Amino acid sequence: MTDLILHEYAASGNCYKVRLTAALFGLPIERREYDIMTGETRTADFLANVNANGRIPVLQAGDRFIPESNAACFYLADGSWLIPEDRFDRADMLRWLFWEQYNHEPNVATLRFWHGWIGEANWSDLQRAQLPAKQAAGAAALALMDAHLARQDWLVGDGPTLADIALYAYTHVAEGGGFRLADYPAVQAWLARVEAVPGYVAMDA
Amino acid sequence: MTDLILHEYAASGNCYKVRLTAALFGLPIERREYDIMTGETRTADFLANVNANGRIPVLQAGDRFIPESNAACFYLADGSWLIPEDRFDRADMLRWLFWEQYNHEPNVATLRFWHGWIGEANWSDLQRAQLPAKQAAGAAALALMDAHLARQDWLVGDGPTLADIALYAYTHVAEGGGFRLADYPAVQAWLARVEAVPGYVAMDA
Repeated sequence: MTDLILHEYAASGNCYKVRLTAALFGLPIERREYDIMTGETRTADFLANVNANGRIPVLQAGDRFIPESNAACFYLADGSWLIPEDRFDRADMLRWLFWEQYNHEPNVATLRFWHGWIGEANWSDLQRAQLPAKQAAGAAALALMDAHLARQDWLVGDGPTLADIALYAYTHVAEGGGFRLADYPAVQAWLARVEAVPGYVAMDA
Repeated sequence: MTDLILHEYAASGNCYKVRLTAALFGLPIERREYDIMTGETRTADFLANVNANGRIPVLQAGDRFIPESNAACFYLADGSWLIPEDRFDRADMLRWLFWEQYNHEPNVATLRFWHGWIGEANWSDLQRAQLPAKQAAGAAALALMDAHLARQDWLVGDGPTLADIALYAYTHVAEGGGFRLADYPAVQAWLARVEAVPGYVAMDA
């Protein structure tokens, strides 16, 4: 594979999932840090040359750029054991990736950011107004995972796929968003299974 | 391909994109309508047997179910000319699908729903508070597409891919969300190109 550069903010779960995917394949990846708290991903240079959407992560492969964390992970994992060979399972794996970005990340990850980076004292009125809905939606997302993982060890099929890697990233730090992982025992057991996958690296590695 | 059933609400762009993808391949698809306005996707039966996430569309293939519109489209298009053969382009196509669900649909589609289905007179205080941010984010999403499509005819590579099909669904009805398509001329030209793809069917077909 061509030289890889990850444009990132290391504490972001979306960035971590790209590093974790690369680590499972032993792929070296150069890391470039941007401070999202000071707008370093919204500069004219970043918007023109890295991502017009002003967000990290962006995976750079040679001179080309892939925004969107789950697309970057798919690029790294394409053709590997993390992508199911069966057509239905492959679509089902993508189902979890889309569900993560629509139902899980905007609630579990956003509340982690609000609590850990913005700080409750600094929340806007709009953030305070959105809080109950995001708490309920985040808890519902974790409960949906828990019910699914009470029936099977991995999200898709009978072994780890990219769905497990992508969902692990923000789920394992959900307590930072005010969620109690002890309320989701099947999720907790699954987190331990993901951590035992050969090549696993921690978020702060 | 096995028998296909689409569990849907026909006026949803997320459901339409699955029908449009199937139409491009001439795939027959049985349609089952649920009234989302009266909670027909939140019944115990639906949650237990169709989608634990309580949402449409869900594509049923034989006795298996694929929630998440873009995953359902991918299942139908897998291995076809709508999925780029090149590894980078394939990931770039997925990039647009993830971007659609994170940056476009929650703004462009949600405002269409608020305007056309809930009605401004019935908006909650929280909806009113979220309106300016969703208007700005929806306009930014359309502007990002417009800048991209001013440089190339299709979102990825030099021909239509699943990215164009998925983004077409809510973009072509963005005026229902209060956006002016005339402000995005490159998007308008691209909409016409998508409509000229052989097999295209309209949303109300």
